Amino acid sequence: MITSTSNVKIKEIVQLQKKSRLRNERGIFLVEGLRMVQEIPMERIEKMYMTEEFYKKKGKALLQEQAMSRKRASPQGKEPLREEAAQGKVLELVTPTVFSYMSDTKTPQGVLAVVRQGGFAKEALMDAKDAHLLVLDNIQDPGNLGTIFRTAEAAGVTGVFLSRDCADIYNPKTVRSTMGAIFRQPFVYVEDLPGTIARMKEKGICVFAAHLQGERSYDREDYRKKTAFLVGNEGNGLRREVEEMADVRVRIPMAGRAESLNAAIAAGVLMFEVARQRRE
Amino acid sequence: MITSTSNVKIKEIVQLQKKSRLRNERGIFLVEGLRMVQEIPMERIEKMYMTEEFYKKKGKALLQEQAMSRKRASPQGKEPLREEAAQGKVLELVTPTVFSYMSDTKTPQGVLAVVRQGGFAKEALMDAKDAHLLVLDNIQDPGNLGTIFRTAEAAGVTGVFLSRDCADIYNPKTVRSTMGAIFRQPFVYVEDLPGTIARMKEKGICVFAAHLQGERSYDREDYRKKTAFLVGNEGNGLRREVEEMADVRVRIPMAGRAESLNAAIAAGVLMFEVARQRRE
Repeated sequence: MITSTSNVKIKEIVQLQKKSRLRNERGIFLVEGLRMVQEIPMERIEKMYMTEEFYKKKGKALLQEQAMSRKRASPQGKEPLREEAAQGKVLELVTPTVFSYMSDTKTPQGVLAVVRQGGFAKEALMDAKDAHLLVLDNIQDPGNLGTIFRTAEAAGVTGVFLSRDCADIYNPKTVRSTMGAIFRQPFVYVEDLPGTIARMKEKGICVFAAHLQGERSYDREDYRKKTAFLVGNEGNGLRREVEEMADVRVRIPMAGRAESLNAAIAAGVLMFEVARQRRE
Repeated sequence: MITSTSNVKIKEIVQLQKKSRLRNERGIFLVEGLRMVQEIPMERIEKMYMTEEFYKKKGKALLQEQAMSRKRASPQGKEPLREEAAQGKVLELVTPTVFSYMSDTKTPQGVLAVVRQGGFAKEALMDAKDAHLLVLDNIQDPGNLGTIFRTAEAAGVTGVFLSRDCADIYNPKTVRSTMGAIFRQPFVYVEDLPGTIARMKEKGICVFAAHLQGERSYDREDYRKKTAFLVGNEGNGLRREVEEMADVRVRIPMAGRAESLNAAIAAGVLMFEVARQRRE
């Protein structure tokens, strides 16, 4: 049982909550709350922190569930998680005070996992059969980014490409707002967005820029072929060098005096139009 | 120039930022920032607070613009705003310290307006030609609610009905996230949501409940007739007594293991499907 907030492991968690760079160097991120922890693919959990109260009420059952699913996954492989936990390899109990200190939330539930980041290859994402790609240029709001991931999974997006200056998907607020999509939605951060889009076009993917001055209405295009959408920053839209790479600029027709849509809403309308056409 | 945070007017603003009940008793709300203040219909402004710096850089021009538009609106009527301002009826200058104290934002721009709440009649909203209505049951997140208003305006929604226990549309965070739609999107809070929906049906409006277990896919329905969508709480969906009033339950088909969509995204997909069908 860790009882002190100056414990070196606890101090590191606090740093990992705050620092994107540290998370990326270490190749890990943090996940809090029962619902979210249940969504984590077993093999990616490095460590679990729980309060004793959480462990007794829900943690024990959670660990047994996970141990069983791990056993099913590789019966000859690693020992079940419960036994590692018993050895203190995965599970650490902490006092409520320590937990509050390490948690990013106002009303912590008493469970936090250290999880390995996923990794996807750019080329493989582009080669997906019936590619339905989303390309995000400098999306800044962590909640928006999480909602876009959650929506992308539901709309059947096969890959999300993010410019390096997008918000960090491993930000604790973003992780929460993905509602688990972060563990399932394939994505990759790329350095050179225009170069990546050029490569998509070489592979026969039709690239649509979501644009307020788009010449074509988004619902007049055919998205049954391989499709990528470019979606830009909340305030400024797409950078010129990104927008110029598109085959077509599409707009979402708007009534009233609304100037623009929220970036997650615009992306949602476009992605579900693809899904709608592909169901027909 | 108000120089003290214990000034009675300033104390009242601080209370108005925090207290939904006080805003509703007084029939007013607060709007901050240049972009948002520019969107306010002239005749609804009761008071403006500015720092001297804001007044010199942008406030003067803003007041002149507004005075002109007010003069155009009623040439025989009230004196232009600028003159009232000179008399201290509308404009109050405050020190930067006082402004920070009264502002709801972390980096205040130095302009805040006290604005009269709008009012719409239920029956008139239901009688709109080509009614396209959105009915919100217990939406709790202020940011979500603002985004729904912004999206509704853009999708051509003719009226939004909110159950009394929805978040307060006049919450400062909600006002900001409407991006000005709060001044233009017709809406009304109602006490009896099931009764209101019954009245819609009497008037020949077809009522669709957005539901995870909906029997019909949302894109297989005809929304060119008078249409209302029921959208429920972020975590719990529609209350049974509200859901039961619907003519049809529709679902948005989802890929992957996503359990649900964010409420604003779901509403956005549905509202823009209506707009799409009505353009065809």
